[in-house]
Amino acid sequence: MHSAIQQQHQGPADVVVLGGGPVGAATARLLAADHRVVLVDAGEHLRAAHRAAGMLAPTSEFRTTEPEVHALALDAMGRWPGEAAALETETGIGLDLRTAGTLHVALGADDLARTTHLADAARAAGLEAAPLDRRSLRRAEPGLSRRVAGGVAVQGDHQVDPRRLVTALRASCAARGVRLVDAAGRLADDGSVVLADGCTLRASVVVVCAGHRTDALLPGALPPTGVRAVAGTVLRLHGTPTAPVPSHVLRGRVDDREVYLVPRTDGELVVGATSVERGTDERVPAGEVLDLLGDAAALYPGVREMHLAEALSGHRPTLATPGPLLREHTLPGSDGPVRVVLSTGHGRHGVLLCHRAAAATAAAVRTSAPSVAPTPPARSSPSVPPTLEEAS
Amino acid sequence: MHSAIQQQHQGPADVVVLGGGPVGAATARLLAADHRVVLVDAGEHLRAAHRAAGMLAPTSEFRTTEPEVHALALDAMGRWPGEAAALETETGIGLDLRTAGTLHVALGADDLARTTHLADAARAAGLEAAPLDRRSLRRAEPGLSRRVAGGVAVQGDHQVDPRRLVTALRASCAARGVRLVDAAGRLADDGSVVLADGCTLRASVVVVCAGHRTDALLPGALPPTGVRAVAGTVLRLHGTPTAPVPSHVLRGRVDDREVYLVPRTDGELVVGATSVERGTDERVPAGEVLDLLGDAAALYPGVREMHLAEALSGHRPTLATPGPLLREHTLPGSDGPVRVVLSTGHGRHGVLLCHRAAAATAAAVRTSAPSVAPTPPARSSPSVPPTLEEAS
Repeated sequence: MHSAIQQQHQGPADVVVLGGGPVGAATARLLAADHRVVLVDAGEHLRAAHRAAGMLAPTSEFRTTEPEVHALALDAMGRWPGEAAALETETGIGLDLRTAGTLHVALGADDLARTTHLADAARAAGLEAAPLDRRSLRRAEPGLSRRVAGGVAVQGDHQVDPRRLVTALRASCAARGVRLVDAAGRLADDGSVVLADGCTLRASVVVVCAGHRTDALLPGALPPTGVRAVAGTVLRLHGTPTAPVPSHVLRGRVDDREVYLVPRTDGELVVGATSVERGTDERVPAGEVLDLLGDAAALYPGVREMHLAEALSGHRPTLATPGPLLREHTLPGSDGPVRVVLSTGHGRHGVLLCHRAAAATAAAVRTSAPSVAPTPPARSSPSVPPTLEEAS
Repeated sequence: MHSAIQQQHQGPADVVVLGGGPVGAATARLLAADHRVVLVDAGEHLRAAHRAAGMLAPTSEFRTTEPEVHALALDAMGRWPGEAAALETETGIGLDLRTAGTLHVALGADDLARTTHLADAARAAGLEAAPLDRRSLRRAEPGLSRRVAGGVAVQGDHQVDPRRLVTALRASCAARGVRLVDAAGRLADDGSVVLADGCTLRASVVVVCAGHRTDALLPGALPPTGVRAVAGTVLRLHGTPTAPVPSHVLRGRVDDREVYLVPRTDGELVVGATSVERGTDERVPAGEVLDLLGDAAALYPGVREMHLAEALSGHRPTLATPGPLLREHTLPGSDGPVRVVLSTGHGRHGVLLCHRAAAATAAAVRTSAPSVAPTPPARSSPSVPPTLEEAS
């Protein structure tokens, strides 16, 4: 492995991107236009997107308490179809972007009241969300339970396959000259990136897009971002000829628990997702599997006949304040200052925001003058934290 | 692979055993005392024991309708502790044979009535099964649900780890000179065993211990055994410090569905098992996972906090008539007659019966005179079907 990695990353680089999820890969891809870029990726098993359903859902995920996040999400949604088409054309890899829309489904009267309330709030904010009675719902999705009380249709919320997205982004990176290094890496105090095998990468800019693991990869000289892991369990099922997957994304509310069912064109159905702060443990609690399967089967009984292929837990990189973080520091490297750009905190919107976040980060990197003062000496000193919104 | 297998099986053999589960491996091990033996094993992914909980449970599995099976099971149970000790001493591999006994637990009044009825039948047949009230049950297993209505204690039913059992049997085989060939194989009309890579093994005796796949591996010249697959899904969980596994095997009845929870010393908990005739499909129906997890959590709420590591479906090799099958045929091989001995149909008792079945098969092989007439020409002609009982 040592020699293989050395071979991969020999030669000079301008930018090292640490983290190969959708945000990191999309960022490396954009920077490749005018930089020599190395993308360091520790593997899909550490990637939130490997577990994610890939919903592109600014309306369904609308929270009145997070207006900045919502504005970003809407903007990112507007870009997605064009970005997807360009990426598909460039790589020949289909992303399974499906635009049939999302149906919100409530099982009982209490769940329906809550669903309707959220839809009313979305409409009040200018979003499109149309009430549907149970008859219309079951006409649109004949596999829904007879117990469904009613729901809401959101035409504008779509989904994409995050695994295919990463595959396509990596293929595009490779085609654009990005060197792909498949290894765990961390940032050292001198601005170098140290790989698991001890090899070192040096560049004048290091971009860290490592999700909830970002702070763990930073050197002691840099203040942590405070990003934390919010765990979510998802199940990957496969439909059968007698129990096909639904045509729409279904988002359900059962006894006030949320569950979603996201179909793929190849017959896969992703059922998710719990949302629990329980550290970075990636083991899968049986109770979360039980609730997800039970709620999914209550809404869509054919789930019982489908086959369970995977049960996985992943982690959304989440900040105490709403919205993602884009922050810059400078480390005194052995060959001159190293600019460190941190891009994390995309929360439940990582797939939706990846192109938007990549554009903001690439713009920040291309600003040749250091935009932020050198790193303060103590870890406790706060750094300047522009949000993604401000920096782009 | 071709050259590796050739290297493994070069040199003459007296007996080829086709199928490396507990029955096949135990049989090869015994035959190695006086034969040159090759064990052909297609891999753990095809092995029922890889999914099995490993209960040694003649009393819990007692059926008044299957007296012959019960007699065999009791006899096999009597041998097990000695066989386990010998195998552990020989190989240094622990089998995790646990003898804390089994608790039958019922959740409601109807389930308790049924549990008590089965225990009464077992006692009437001379077996030991002691009624327990809910207070005694929860004293023995503090993690049981407060909703438990009562149960029955069976001191004599134990469990072993089937994966460790196979590992130990294979190690013993290797130490005794058995050549282990890890490849899929099938029997040809000329009595040779053809491996997946086209290599051929020849011996004067071929023993087929291939569980529910037995008939699929036989040539057209031999009549099928009629063994069929009865599917079962099991879950492998891991206990945590705050949600430890129980001390006993728990067998529960919830809304008249059966579920069992089998603890291992390393903190694993095997939850099983459904029993469904749905062909040889090894995919895992989500509904079976849902029922098993839900029933296990209803009996033992800590299950919700445990971690789900695996969900697997396996197949019990099952006959229309009770009890296992030991049957012999002769094929006209190119170098002389080839004796074919079939050992299958161990149903839900494969782990319990493995040493007993191996002894019976080894005795049959050692009977030098062909004990059965040559194979009838047509597939529809019935062969002589001595049961394991008769043949041993």
